[in-house]
Amino acid sequence: MAGSTLGTIFRITTWGESHGKGLGVVIDGCPAGLSLCEADIQRFLDRRKPGQSKYTTARQEADTAEILSGVFEGRTTGTPISVVVYNRDQRSKDYGEIASCYRPGHADFTFDQKYGFRDYRGGGRSSGRETIGRVAAGAVAAKILGKLGISLLTYTKSIGPVEISPTRFDAAQIAENPLCMPDAAAAENAQNYLDACMADQNSSGGVIECIVRGMPAGIGDPVFEKLDANLAKAILSVGAVKGFEIGDGFDVAKATGKSNNDAFRAEGKTIVKTTNHAGGILGGISDAGDIVLRAAIKPTPSIASPQQTVTRGGEEREISICGRHDPVIVPRAVVVIEAMTALTLVDALFLNMSARMDALEAFYR
Amino acid sequence: MAGSTLGTIFRITTWGESHGKGLGVVIDGCPAGLSLCEADIQRFLDRRKPGQSKYTTARQEADTAEILSGVFEGRTTGTPISVVVYNRDQRSKDYGEIASCYRPGHADFTFDQKYGFRDYRGGGRSSGRETIGRVAAGAVAAKILGKLGISLLTYTKSIGPVEISPTRFDAAQIAENPLCMPDAAAAENAQNYLDACMADQNSSGGVIECIVRGMPAGIGDPVFEKLDANLAKAILSVGAVKGFEIGDGFDVAKATGKSNNDAFRAEGKTIVKTTNHAGGILGGISDAGDIVLRAAIKPTPSIASPQQTVTRGGEEREISICGRHDPVIVPRAVVVIEAMTALTLVDALFLNMSARMDALEAFYR
Amino acid sequence: MAGSTLGTIFRITTWGESHGKGLGVVIDGCPAGLSLCEADIQRFLDRRKPGQSKYTTARQEADTAEILSGVFEGRTTGTPISVVVYNRDQRSKDYGEIASCYRPGHADFTFDQKYGFRDYRGGGRSSGRETIGRVAAGAVAAKILGKLGISLLTYTKSIGPVEISPTRFDAAQIAENPLCMPDAAAAENAQNYLDACMADQNSSGGVIECIVRGMPAGIGDPVFEKLDANLAKAILSVGAVKGFEIGDGFDVAKATGKSNNDAFRAEGKTIVKTTNHAGGILGGISDAGDIVLRAAIKPTPSIASPQQTVTRGGEEREISICGRHDPVIVPRAVVVIEAMTALTLVDALFLNMSARMDALEAFYR
Amino acid sequence: MAGSTLGTIFRITTWGESHGKGLGVVIDGCPAGLSLCEADIQRFLDRRKPGQSKYTTARQEADTAEILSGVFEGRTTGTPISVVVYNRDQRSKDYGEIASCYRPGHADFTFDQKYGFRDYRGGGRSSGRETIGRVAAGAVAAKILGKLGISLLTYTKSIGPVEISPTRFDAAQIAENPLCMPDAAAAENAQNYLDACMADQNSSGGVIECIVRGMPAGIGDPVFEKLDANLAKAILSVGAVKGFEIGDGFDVAKATGKSNNDAFRAEGKTIVKTTNHAGGILGGISDAGDIVLRAAIKPTPSIASPQQTVTRGGEEREISICGRHDPVIVPRAVVVIEAMTALTLVDALFLNMSARMDALEAFYR
Repeated sequence: MAGSTLGTIFRITTWGESHGKGLGVVIDGCPAGLSLCEADIQRFLDRRKPGQSKYTTARQEADTAEILSGVFEGRTTGTPISVVVYNRDQRSKDYGEIASCYRPGHADFTFDQKYGFRDYRGGGRSSGRETIGRVAAGAVAAKILGKLGISLLTYTKSIGPVEISPTRFDAAQIAENPLCMPDAAAAENAQNYLDACMADQNSSGGVIECIVRGMPAGIGDPVFEKLDANLAKAILSVGAVKGFEIGDGFDVAKATGKSNNDAFRAEGKTIVKTTNHAGGILGGISDAGDIVLRAAIKPTPSIASPQQTVTRGGEEREISICGRHDPVIVPRAVVVIEAMTALTLVDALFLNMSARMDALEAFYR
Repeated sequence: MAGSTLGTIFRITTWGESHGKGLGVVIDGCPAGLSLCEADIQRFLDRRKPGQSKYTTARQEADTAEILSGVFEGRTTGTPISVVVYNRDQRSKDYGEIASCYRPGHADFTFDQKYGFRDYRGGGRSSGRETIGRVAAGAVAAKILGKLGISLLTYTKSIGPVEISPTRFDAAQIAENPLCMPDAAAAENAQNYLDACMADQNSSGGVIECIVRGMPAGIGDPVFEKLDANLAKAILSVGAVKGFEIGDGFDVAKATGKSNNDAFRAEGKTIVKTTNHAGGILGGISDAGDIVLRAAIKPTPSIASPQQTVTRGGEEREISICGRHDPVIVPRAVVVIEAMTALTLVDALFLNMSARMDALEAFYR
Repeated sequence: MAGSTLGTIFRITTWGESHGKGLGVVIDGCPAGLSLCEADIQRFLDRRKPGQSKYTTARQEADTAEILSGVFEGRTTGTPISVVVYNRDQRSKDYGEIASCYRPGHADFTFDQKYGFRDYRGGGRSSGRETIGRVAAGAVAAKILGKLGISLLTYTKSIGPVEISPTRFDAAQIAENPLCMPDAAAAENAQNYLDACMADQNSSGGVIECIVRGMPAGIGDPVFEKLDANLAKAILSVGAVKGFEIGDGFDVAKATGKSNNDAFRAEGKTIVKTTNHAGGILGGISDAGDIVLRAAIKPTPSIASPQQTVTRGGEEREISICGRHDPVIVPRAVVVIEAMTALTLVDALFLNMSARMDALEAFYR
Repeated sequence: MAGSTLGTIFRITTWGESHGKGLGVVIDGCPAGLSLCEADIQRFLDRRKPGQSKYTTARQEADTAEILSGVFEGRTTGTPISVVVYNRDQRSKDYGEIASCYRPGHADFTFDQKYGFRDYRGGGRSSGRETIGRVAAGAVAAKILGKLGISLLTYTKSIGPVEISPTRFDAAQIAENPLCMPDAAAAENAQNYLDACMADQNSSGGVIECIVRGMPAGIGDPVFEKLDANLAKAILSVGAVKGFEIGDGFDVAKATGKSNNDAFRAEGKTIVKTTNHAGGILGGISDAGDIVLRAAIKPTPSIASPQQTVTRGGEEREISICGRHDPVIVPRAVVVIEAMTALTLVDALFLNMSARMDALEAFYR
């Protein structure tokens, strides 16, 4: 099935493999008249670029975005924006073991089961490099949101057992440490934890949080196209994500109606909630409060420690994965989560425009 | 936007409001030749029927399903199956307060923001009764899965602070207690907890778990149509769900590569995993292990305790919601989660059939 | 596959069989706040109702529409509108011959090939009654168009060899003759032609034309979602249609650039075309001229004359189809073509709203 | 809206402008294991390449296809196939007049109305070069069809008043004349006609016919996803097409049931039709007969003769379009119509696989 397209009227289609000629995305349904240049996209791509600290893979890739279509004289034309990033550092090497063995925690086995064979070079389509197209498109989505007064703040909430403290929260810190944590002390503790993991040929998971500010009320649809349902799909579609929460998430299971309901109050003519357990969405529709979501990221499955596995032929074997691998995916995934959130919100905003007859008549009359 | 349709080639469209004439679903893309009768659907609907214990609303509804199309001489014809459930107990009452006030934790406010007004009778389309169509369709999906050797086991994992114990797990218990817990002792504790909630005019949340057995490997697609991404969307589209986990879920954030990776081993000619932290899905594609997912359900927002709110006109006010409301939604939502899971799996199985040229040629030659 | 849904954000799903319990449609994505009642829908359904003249089947059906959801206090709520028409006159009869034989020109054979068996009662899902849901939904779409100043005029252009004359064109005549022709003389000639067909146990084809007035410029999308492409799909999805034309249609094949190009001129500040060979669409996008389309309708395949056919079992046989059948489908299909056109235009209008950044910012700021 | 994607599970997304950096397509949902190389695609692209005779534009473009992803060791992997064709001959020129004037018969005016401005270089996205992505993808679709024993024969049926003769029909001639006509005499007459058009600074339209052989019965879906409906959309989505016919097309309007119905007879165990007025499709589902469709192609709107038009600013003006333009689009559009047909059939074949429970159980058990 065609699984590389996301969105209904703001729609992206990604393509490309880790060690193929390149990766890219076609962004279709972008409104005409948005000022856009390659630097807008590059700024996002640079946030997921490898080789930026000892906690990310040493693979050297500039990941330079080139826009091939859809922009004319500095503005989007309304037609598809094709963005390509050519692969440069496809280190020539012997893929023998990965080609024949199933790496635990990877999609090698399931790709073979589904397709009969696979492009084993660097994980092929199941590599983390697949997210390049998402991030490039997310840059465009985020720019649209910015024009509508909507901003996103995304960061690492925890790495392994080390969590940020609400009392030390400082958004300015996110860009100041290699782990994208809005808490300098936690970032230091997390680095110590990661150093220990690396010494032990091990890796760590973590949690990413994204806060959306300025979202108008009324976006999202009842029933199957709830805004949080589409956010959940978008976030879970990122390779290493194993859990999703909106607002209080799993904590609601232990909460009561009294503690979990957000009361309403009037702030002049505006109706606001006094708390935000709901995470900015009620009944699948935005309520004008901050949208707060979290993603649980699993530890990098590629570890140097020996692991038990099986070959394509069914022979049991031990494998040690020695390549260039991130000991933690979380910091590089921060911009991916932000991109997926932005893409989902833009599509929901566009889909909402025909919700009311009065607005429709005003638009066309 | 049209938000009441789910699925690509096995596709359902639901309709109906809590206090309108009825609710229903059109199931399109069901293969021809499946034996199907109203009792198949009724069995599922009965699991979400109100009035079955003191922990569910006292509203009296038989919720009788009628099949209007798509079945001929006891078998599906391949054309749309229309199922309708007429509302009977639309207790005639004064909706005055709900009509003018925004109930905390409900979609009243966001519906008004989106649509300009709303059908306030019993929550209209945002009522839990909206799930009737999902469950009716889920019954058909589950029957298809059964024919392919795939079964689902769904139950309450926790209510408030009371969680089932793995050592006392007994699937036979699920049908034996009103809370659908596979652990008799936990079910008793949970009932005590709920009794206290009710005495306090309060309500409780909980967690539902679903286990899918017999799923073949290779189902689901890389990138945006990952099987777990579609499951996440389906589950989050259920009204009260605030979190979703696959496999170890949020626990992976604290795990390491060593502890989280599932090793492979050979069992005769079959390749299996020695553990199942992944929850049966690797890279978005099923790995033939059990699929394990969880949904966090928020406490019923309708509570009799007074809450602070605002009227449509912007006036602050106190509200006490006295109607017929479940103190906990979890037990009745169990079959809804099962239905959403079944619907997602069937669509993924159908979409997978053209994944390989050899299978395609065998099918058509 | 799920083939009974049409549209992206204004989306309809139809269901039902000729001799089942009923037929219906779920209309999803209708904006909130449209005044709507059953009479709005009935007016459209009455135009396709059987038994209105000797040129239509004698089957007696009131075809009464009932709205089951999505309308509250006389206005649409933005949630799915479910409309049902129960079958009344399912004349109890022996379906033996139709059940076992393949009627020439019908879908009996292809349904069996696809699904393995079929609901043979009156053609089941492939009956012309399947269009009831389309027409009910088209009534809603046409009402939305009306609010935007867009109107549709649809009529019979020809029956067999009898064509309307441009010089005698009189829209008021459409409702005055049983053939829906805007030309009284042609209508009389056509009736004579049909009388001869009937005497000969034969049937006739014809052409339907639809003119859309008031369509704003800029609607429709380049490439695959061209407005005329979607109109073509919508029109060809009607059972008996074998050809589609926009503007000059097949005549363009014999035209030249000089004769076929529509020159532009300025009418005050408005830019208009001096002719309309294009039929109101240039490059897939509406140009504010009248949209003009035509559908070729095949002769009713059910004729009393003996025809050669084969049974399910492969035995050759002669068949005479004696039931209640229209000697010409065209007049009753007029409202079906109008409905399909209206449905397509509404979806295109809604999808267009996010085409420009300036309009988007104005909408949300 | 996102209008550059076609198909449900075999899905293509095209991008690119006439005078931008290049054009391309992402083909998603191609089964794994199809042998594929750039030459397979090039063979199709060469059939639409400019500069092949005096009847096509003199623009010099090699139109060389490069595969960037989705193929590994000579076989498709099941992941997206990205194909790019870089533009070479973007003749540096002054676009002044086209930039400010609306060319009659072109999409200049409607693009401006929709998007507020446009990429005027060579028509931008509305150029005939947009079909490069379609043709590249069509090559892949046609290769899949070939593996299933399905072949396509596409040719020019008429140019202006010159039509091929059924009695002189010779498929071998299609590749032998620059007009792709299966009739040497007609091709010569048509060339004479075109020479006269060119001398008169004029252009011609024509008709393309496509015949599909070997299509199994049972493909396509009732109601909205009829095979002919999807073919109609695919064909009308090609820029210059103004009409579509399946089987006897508009001739059915003058036919009678007796003359138009195709009788069935038994050929051994196979049921066949004795004639093929239906064009291989009954009730939207293939009947195993040849699928026969036709497209009406309008005359090239770009002609050197002076035409009346208006500038963006609303000033009336005369325009003469002098660039490099085909006096007839038909021969180069032949492979485009073939590509669109192949793409539609492949998607329909894939979507059909879950139509029957027995086949489904056989597939997964």
